Amino acid sequence: MFDRVWLNAHLATMQGEGLGLVEDGAVAARGGRIAWVGPRAALPGPAAETVDCAGAWILPGLIDCHTHLVFGGDRAAEFEQRLEGASYEEIARAGGGILSTVRATRAASEDALLAAARPRLAALMAEGVTTVEIKSGYGLDLETELRQLRVARRLGETAAVSVRTTLLAAHAVPPEFAGRRADYARHVAEVILPAAAGAGLADAVDAFCERIAFTLEETALVFEAARAAGLPVKLHADQLCDFGGAALAARYGALSADHLEYASTAGIAAMARAGSVAVLLPGACYFIREERRPDIAAMRAAGLRLALASDLNPGSSPALSLLLMLNLGCTLFRLTVAEALRGVTVVAAAALGLADRGRLAPGLRCDLALYRIARPAELCYWIGGNPCIGRVVGGHVVEEQRGEGLR
Amino acid sequence: MFDRVWLNAHLATMQGEGLGLVEDGAVAARGGRIAWVGPRAALPGPAAETVDCAGAWILPGLIDCHTHLVFGGDRAAEFEQRLEGASYEEIARAGGGILSTVRATRAASEDALLAAARPRLAALMAEGVTTVEIKSGYGLDLETELRQLRVARRLGETAAVSVRTTLLAAHAVPPEFAGRRADYARHVAEVILPAAAGAGLADAVDAFCERIAFTLEETALVFEAARAAGLPVKLHADQLCDFGGAALAARYGALSADHLEYASTAGIAAMARAGSVAVLLPGACYFIREERRPDIAAMRAAGLRLALASDLNPGSSPALSLLLMLNLGCTLFRLTVAEALRGVTVVAAAALGLADRGRLAPGLRCDLALYRIARPAELCYWIGGNPCIGRVVGGHVVEEQRGEGLR
Ligand SMILES: [Zn+2]
Ligand SMILES: [Zn+2]
Repeated sequence: MFDRVWLNAHLATMQGEGLGLVEDGAVAARGGRIAWVGPRAALPGPAAETVDCAGAWILPGLIDCHTHLVFGGDRAAEFEQRLEGASYEEIARAGGGILSTVRATRAASEDALLAAARPRLAALMAEGVTTVEIKSGYGLDLETELRQLRVARRLGETAAVSVRTTLLAAHAVPPEFAGRRADYARHVAEVILPAAAGAGLADAVDAFCERIAFTLEETALVFEAARAAGLPVKLHADQLCDFGGAALAARYGALSADHLEYASTAGIAAMARAGSVAVLLPGACYFIREERRPDIAAMRAAGLRLALASDLNPGSSPALSLLLMLNLGCTLFRLTVAEALRGVTVVAAAALGLADRGRLAPGLRCDLALYRIARPAELCYWIGGNPCIGRVVGGHVVEEQRGEGLR
Repeated sequence: MFDRVWLNAHLATMQGEGLGLVEDGAVAARGGRIAWVGPRAALPGPAAETVDCAGAWILPGLIDCHTHLVFGGDRAAEFEQRLEGASYEEIARAGGGILSTVRATRAASEDALLAAARPRLAALMAEGVTTVEIKSGYGLDLETELRQLRVARRLGETAAVSVRTTLLAAHAVPPEFAGRRADYARHVAEVILPAAAGAGLADAVDAFCERIAFTLEETALVFEAARAAGLPVKLHADQLCDFGGAALAARYGALSADHLEYASTAGIAAMARAGSVAVLLPGACYFIREERRPDIAAMRAAGLRLALASDLNPGSSPALSLLLMLNLGCTLFRLTVAEALRGVTVVAAAALGLADRGRLAPGLRCDLALYRIARPAELCYWIGGNPCIGRVVGGHVVEEQRGEGLR
């Protein structure tokens, strides 16, 4: 006897290499897990509750594996000024840029950060997201970094979504350490990271390894500390130039290296050998008008797994839609529909080190997203609009969605 | 005594040259019209009903002045095939391209077209759109063109939105006229257009003037027929090359010429002199990966008014979000926030020849869009998400919106 079964649906299970399509399928849940998946005609037993999906498509609940969605303030005024011709220098002099977000985040209480983050998270969830990664990195001091991570944890406890937290204290150099970048990296490795790990607030550790941020050596110092604390690592790598970040991430067996517009073929090959995932962030590429594209052909040739994420952040990707990232990934990076959809499900799960979700398969968490569409390609094809008509988290129908579907 | 007053709101009235901001303002309605707008402290009288906007921003209801949202089928499968490497030729051989939409539209009943269009229109409305233009152009024969226009009229009668219809029979050459393009243009001018005008189904006439579509002479023939029928004209112009469309539109005193990526400085100047509006369609530019941008600097120098629209259509802009067009217009075309927001309100109204909407001013229709944001720039800044919390059409609160706002 199953707890609940979803019928009259088509499935994109993400089993095998492609989308793992099952037309006229069924999904059965027991104890919050998927108990059975397959063609409806083969469904083995009865269920306490039956959900008629009226021909909708069911995918594994979407996973946004790279966000910075807890922050104070926003940068809309800066966006407006820049369009009116203000230079980066003028904006920096007027208090803009990432340090304006750091100031606003430090000034915000835990409750204020939580209240500000809620609607952003709700926008992602409304499209079918059931797992989201959230990074710190706008505190850049012990107290505020931990506050950001606590807010992320509270979001996961109070919203019907799984949250994975990542400590990104090595995101930028805070004003107190101006001119002493290496000292700050050491402070992250010796003080902030052990404290976050000790409090159980971080599921992973990330850094921004770039000419304008931290060097390879400083990043390695942070990664060594993560290793000592037993935390897996991720890396913002090779976004603005070929800095060797991909290879460094591979050397530390990183779960993922993210951005990678300028990653070298050697770096890509090293990542593939290490089993790291490439997390592509087309929203940032679009928003900062970067012309360079990640070398998808080389990534495919190396057998690298590709994930897609929103990079939701106030400076370079104020993106509140993971579905739009599917369209951007296909349009700008020429991902196939299967690559894009696997990139927000099974591969995104791998980028977070999660083996218990991202596919429709027995034993996995019963996290589902339901869409009123005629074929999965529509999730990549439309620009805007929300075809999500339901979301299931841990086997429970958590809400009727706001979307009306597209059919 | 007003019928209704909205208080505790900030206003972007679009009065004057910029956004016409009023902090802590009030809007009062009587008989479906705006009766008074200004600072709350100066509100002259009582109202039968008061709406507390809790600090939201009120804009004139948004106007999407260029859509093709009534069509059969979609092109998601074609999108998928192209990403897998299929060439245009292979897709055409497999029955793809615009003629696949024509086939699907001809095969669809009026009710089927209506049902397919509803969720697309609902997606636009959910963001605050209160007026939408809908073109025909996927029938390419008398019967189907009129059917598309009847569907557009029915949408306007049954949804809480104003619909303006445009006959675009000169969109492509139908298969029956293969190799006889000029004959088809004459058929449009002599048969389809007079029938649509006679039935009162068209508020305006449009054509696709381009090397791959209709010549300047054929377009002029259609425009002469529009003039004879007393209908204003619009034009798909200079999207793929400098074809002289902008100048032709100006010569006929067109309400607007649309796209304009390749419009010449002379064409732009002619449009400005004629009072035509430039309708920018960044969704199409993005989706077809056009590198060329409309010459915004020349348009500004000429004093041309700029509108922004979705171009919602299955082939080159499957865009279900006008808010996203604000972000695309700012990001890709470097429009200012004020230009972008005027482009979906006061200037979009001008592009449809409507003087009774698009601003918050006494005497105009009381069409409002309410947003939970801290400043209007947020409508352009976020990528995805829906901050719309309410919509008013003709003085009536037509629905509580699905969006939760961003604050
Ligand atoms: Zn990031
Ligand atoms: Zn168009």
